[in-house]
Amino acid sequence: MKFTIDQNELSKCVNIVQKGISSKTTLPILNGILIYAKNDKLTLTGTDLEIGIETSIDCNIEEEGSIVITSRIFGDIIRKLPNLPINIEVDEKNNVHITCGLSKFNIVGQPSLEYPQLPQIDNKNSFEVPKDLLKNMIRQTIFATAQDETRPILTGALLEINNENAALVALDGYRLALKNASVNYKEEIKVVIPSKTLNEVNKILDDDDSDIEISCTDNHIIFNLGNTVITSRLLEGQFLNYKDIIRNEYKSRVKVKTKSIQESIERASLLAREGKNNLVKFDVSDDKLVITSNSEIGDVYEEIPIELEGNVIQIAFNSKYILDGIRVIDSEEIILNLVSNVNPCIIKPVEDESYTYLILPVRLA
Amino acid sequence: MKFTIDQNELSKCVNIVQKGISSKTTLPILNGILIYAKNDKLTLTGTDLEIGIETSIDCNIEEEGSIVITSRIFGDIIRKLPNLPINIEVDEKNNVHITCGLSKFNIVGQPSLEYPQLPQIDNKNSFEVPKDLLKNMIRQTIFATAQDETRPILTGALLEINNENAALVALDGYRLALKNASVNYKEEIKVVIPSKTLNEVNKILDDDDSDIEISCTDNHIIFNLGNTVITSRLLEGQFLNYKDIIRNEYKSRVKVKTKSIQESIERASLLAREGKNNLVKFDVSDDKLVITSNSEIGDVYEEIPIELEGNVIQIAFNSKYILDGIRVIDSEEIILNLVSNVNPCIIKPVEDESYTYLILPVRLA
Repeated sequence: MKFTIDQNELSKCVNIVQKGISSKTTLPILNGILIYAKNDKLTLTGTDLEIGIETSIDCNIEEEGSIVITSRIFGDIIRKLPNLPINIEVDEKNNVHITCGLSKFNIVGQPSLEYPQLPQIDNKNSFEVPKDLLKNMIRQTIFATAQDETRPILTGALLEINNENAALVALDGYRLALKNASVNYKEEIKVVIPSKTLNEVNKILDDDDSDIEISCTDNHIIFNLGNTVITSRLLEGQFLNYKDIIRNEYKSRVKVKTKSIQESIERASLLAREGKNNLVKFDVSDDKLVITSNSEIGDVYEEIPIELEGNVIQIAFNSKYILDGIRVIDSEEIILNLVSNVNPCIIKPVEDESYTYLILPVRLA
Repeated sequence: MKFTIDQNELSKCVNIVQKGISSKTTLPILNGILIYAKNDKLTLTGTDLEIGIETSIDCNIEEEGSIVITSRIFGDIIRKLPNLPINIEVDEKNNVHITCGLSKFNIVGQPSLEYPQLPQIDNKNSFEVPKDLLKNMIRQTIFATAQDETRPILTGALLEINNENAALVALDGYRLALKNASVNYKEEIKVVIPSKTLNEVNKILDDDDSDIEISCTDNHIIFNLGNTVITSRLLEGQFLNYKDIIRNEYKSRVKVKTKSIQESIERASLLAREGKNNLVKFDVSDDKLVITSNSEIGDVYEEIPIELEGNVIQIAFNSKYILDGIRVIDSEEIILNLVSNVNPCIIKPVEDESYTYLILPVRLA
């Protein structure tokens, strides 16, 4: 294998595929990046068997071939080389010779034969979404996935497509985040994507307004960004029927400025976090919301002007959970829909039906 | 105690004195900030008994008094409050009432009686240095202080003033960093300042070109920045006679571009760090320096054009130690003075006698 490539270009590709590599792998070859040179195209691959990331770049290949090289050291070398053409050549002993300016590295490679093949899937069941919409869908839901493995299915987010509407849903037993978007796809899809995959997709997506192609099979999902393809295993099992959890009736409807309530809860949580369960208490009256919290070291009282429709109510929340949902809302105002102090609170941006955040209250003794 | 102060101003003061507070203190009162209001001046103090930081601000005091309040929670509250006037009032039970806009905090304070007094020192033996010069002196030497406590005196830096020349020196047995500067002070000073103190002084100094006043006693050093005063204990013991270590003769004198040699050693160290002792080998010939390193995973060869005066030489270094010294040099070119591969190498910026970095070579088997 022999080719020459610009340092900057190769560095970008390495940064992308390194996101697929886990430092905790037990299979040594998976610590490596697969480099594959063929038909004047260089392809780099990183995988931990759950997620696989492949990126390609046009390149003048002098001699075709492939090699696996330790990801960490290869990445460090490429990033540290000067911004000049890099020549990479592999000899018959699998030694990788990297030359750039007056720098020469010889690194021991591994034959690519042992490297696992990423699943090959045809793209006939695919649909497209704008990148920035997908990023937003991920950002507004991913934090609500379960962190512990007691119910593995909840460590992922459900992607459900029905009647040209896509819903991304995450829930962990304490709160639920749902983002809807219309898509140009007439079939049905119902898959659960690992949160790690969505996090990595989010990091790799740049902020241009082009589309990303998504395809699903029974076991895999593929995000096709053009030069980069991310393949991930899906989670197996039955996701909760989230539609049953979200009810639209309410007895109290609070309209409040997003920034005001967020900052007040953040301040209240300074004392809440000193206590047992991040408890903040809401006291909703006709024209104001009073948020209080206390712990051994003191107490806090926050007052925010609101518009109330319906009954006054007192209810308590875990400050972390309620903040998580409010922080991802971009609208200037939000609506809190409440039934009683033991029923879930539903938070929505004003004039935006696409996002729903549901949080269970904390029952007070 | 009762006063009103701008949130932004108070926040700055809290950030400064928090640098004096250690999270590891065994004396609970030292987790607090001392707030002292008198004569329309608010003074905040933080100390861990080694270092004490005091900062003052003009302020309309409605009722004089003092209180100690937990640093972490007080800092978090002040930073999170909106940028409005903050009213702080302490009641007879030592509860601190903090009001700002529609936010009200009540925090349990501690009486200031138990708070230790910072040493009071008269400033008759004081001299002034420009802030940016002091910052530079610290930056160019502090990293060479010893990290382990086997010889406590070496965990500090020696400040020696003699014939209106100030020298700041740090050494750890493997390398030595020395920065000289002329000062307008005719007495002699020889004190060893803890590296933690110098680090905190460096962080607190802003980048304006005003002067800072430094005073010393037998046991303490005081940095007076105007509104902020930093007092620190000195280290006790005899510092090594650093002048005996630095010799100016050489048999090989290498002139090289700072950026080139730095980047080459950084790349070589990618493999060196995989080996045992960060070893990089230098091979100095007439017009080039070749840097090599190797480990189990491969080897690296770096070539840099140089100007050589004197003998060709082969010598090896710990890449971390040599990089530390080169990275803090701002000049475009540096000089390496070498005697043999077992004698120290002395590195200096070209046309700048004020800085000297000395590093011991690694003896090759």
